[in-house]
Amino acid sequence: MAEAIQTYPEIAEGLIFKHNETFLLESGKHLPKLKLCYSTYGKLNDDKSNVVWVCHALTGNANVTDWWKELFGENKLYDYSQYFIVCANVPGSCYGSIGPLDINEETNQPYFYDFPSITIRDVVNAFEMLKSHLGIEKIHTCIGGSLGGQQALEWAVSYPDTIENLVLMATNARTSPWGVALNETQRMAIRTDITWGQRHEEAGLEGMKVARAMALLSYRSYETYEHTQKDMQDAMFDLKAITYQQHQGNKFKKRFNAFSYWAMTLLLDSHNVGRNRGGVSAALKKINAKTLIIGISTDVLFPTKEQEYLHKHIKNSRLEIIESLYGHDGFLIETEKIQSIIQNFYNS
Amino acid sequence: MAEAIQTYPEIAEGLIFKHNETFLLESGKHLPKLKLCYSTYGKLNDDKSNVVWVCHALTGNANVTDWWKELFGENKLYDYSQYFIVCANVPGSCYGSIGPLDINEETNQPYFYDFPSITIRDVVNAFEMLKSHLGIEKIHTCIGGSLGGQQALEWAVSYPDTIENLVLMATNARTSPWGVALNETQRMAIRTDITWGQRHEEAGLEGMKVARAMALLSYRSYETYEHTQKDMQDAMFDLKAITYQQHQGNKFKKRFNAFSYWAMTLLLDSHNVGRNRGGVSAALKKINAKTLIIGISTDVLFPTKEQEYLHKHIKNSRLEIIESLYGHDGFLIETEKIQSIIQNFYNS
Repeated sequence: MAEAIQTYPEIAEGLIFKHNETFLLESGKHLPKLKLCYSTYGKLNDDKSNVVWVCHALTGNANVTDWWKELFGENKLYDYSQYFIVCANVPGSCYGSIGPLDINEETNQPYFYDFPSITIRDVVNAFEMLKSHLGIEKIHTCIGGSLGGQQALEWAVSYPDTIENLVLMATNARTSPWGVALNETQRMAIRTDITWGQRHEEAGLEGMKVARAMALLSYRSYETYEHTQKDMQDAMFDLKAITYQQHQGNKFKKRFNAFSYWAMTLLLDSHNVGRNRGGVSAALKKINAKTLIIGISTDVLFPTKEQEYLHKHIKNSRLEIIESLYGHDGFLIETEKIQSIIQNFYNS
Repeated sequence: MAEAIQTYPEIAEGLIFKHNETFLLESGKHLPKLKLCYSTYGKLNDDKSNVVWVCHALTGNANVTDWWKELFGENKLYDYSQYFIVCANVPGSCYGSIGPLDINEETNQPYFYDFPSITIRDVVNAFEMLKSHLGIEKIHTCIGGSLGGQQALEWAVSYPDTIENLVLMATNARTSPWGVALNETQRMAIRTDITWGQRHEEAGLEGMKVARAMALLSYRSYETYEHTQKDMQDAMFDLKAITYQQHQGNKFKKRFNAFSYWAMTLLLDSHNVGRNRGGVSAALKKINAKTLIIGISTDVLFPTKEQEYLHKHIKNSRLEIIESLYGHDGFLIETEKIQSIIQNFYNS
């Protein structure tokens, strides 16, 4: 059932977990098989009490040191010598886990447009399988920001006795209507690409560039652009922010595909811990984990009222708001403040 | 030089002003001729002291009663029996003034992609010509929101003795880098449309739909969507905000063209009262008009810090912030509050 090949005892990136049976999805659809790409750092200790599970955000991957290196590593908050750190790529993404470019074993063709929509709840169920495979019972800390925080939160609701400490950053209990509208507008940009509809890996890439540039406006704040993209006093049409948006779109095109991006936006749309549980506040009451909620003052995508809501409804929770110039992306950037807040949380 | 045909003494919509000589642009380019479509309401009084000039926003037109009917009309703040109200369509737009679909007299073909970029300063210079044509010397009140406010402000800086009362809503002294980034991302969406590049009126329309949906996210707020597009408790992928974004794109496609939309976003990019005047604060010092500045608490596109800045640098100014659920669009929606604020401003 599993083919995990560890290359290093301490750092093992690009491991593959396969579940060769039907994986049922919340939508009623299914995947004939499941494949997760994951990375581990450090060793599981004897009493299996040192697991830190990291959930990545919309376009992240399983290698936490690629995108959160200030928090994970030698002499960092999460040192490999102390913790056994696990991070798995989300199904539907393009970094090794099953996704739309994989072969659909029922048709022997790549899924492309036929890849079924995945929900956050499906992701958590997939991660639960990997967790069992790794012999993990309890998770010392489950941590994530944005879409990663949504997974961590859903996990703590679905399996209330698994997670001991829950660290939620710049996230919410349910994707907001404004967030859904942003996601749909990004999908509209992809649909505008004439190649979207064709069955090859590069379909929709030009549209995806636009989607990325659009999303970036919500990840950063008015203040971030003011700080980094301001023009000389007498500029007319040749403006910095123009080049910046184009550059960000082009950069992203090199590392993602439109099928996975489409799937990731739907995954974000699907997030609602209250679905079929009598609503969001009832669902949040199920959480037993000791919870730290971090919001960012300038976040327009996941405004602090969403973290205040979590704090109000999660019984054993603490709320910290970080002042930042970087808006939503602050959860990836303000690592010094975050490290200190999490340290205090553990000590309390 | 002029061909204004008044159909009613009180309400005259769709009038045309032609200036059949070269109109030089701030960029150094030119238009061989200028044409402005404008509307007037009421009559110029004997001492020419009752002129209210309205500047429309990005996708507006010259007929103020189409989009600001709560402020203009019988028994409204600006009653036709008291004021002579003028509003002209901005050059580059698609509501009667010269624009990209017009014939370029130098080539005998429609301009399309060759329409020169217009700046806010060009718009003000064009309006000055219309003003002279109408025999107007002083403007009792110049009023506008968003891009309209930018024109009113630029006018008060360029011609400090023309405007007596200046009413600026949800606007700024210079388009912000975040605003430019939003505009460019919208143009990226238009460029993604495979028909963009073709020389016909419908080129780029699918891309423009995406641009409009994107812009809407900045016109309304997180709270607006929360209030109007929230789904039932157990929804999964079939979400209200998805239909809403598509609907708004489709609706807009019926009333605009991508060439004019492109021109309007560049017009917005161009706004900077400080260009070649020693910076923004120096430019604002030139204003002699008694100025009312209105900001909207939830405006993410023109945040209230921009109106605070105007207030700080315009000597005879008053600042009012309106609480609203509607974000930037509040300037079109919160007319009851606006009416009362303007009335108090006149009385003070």
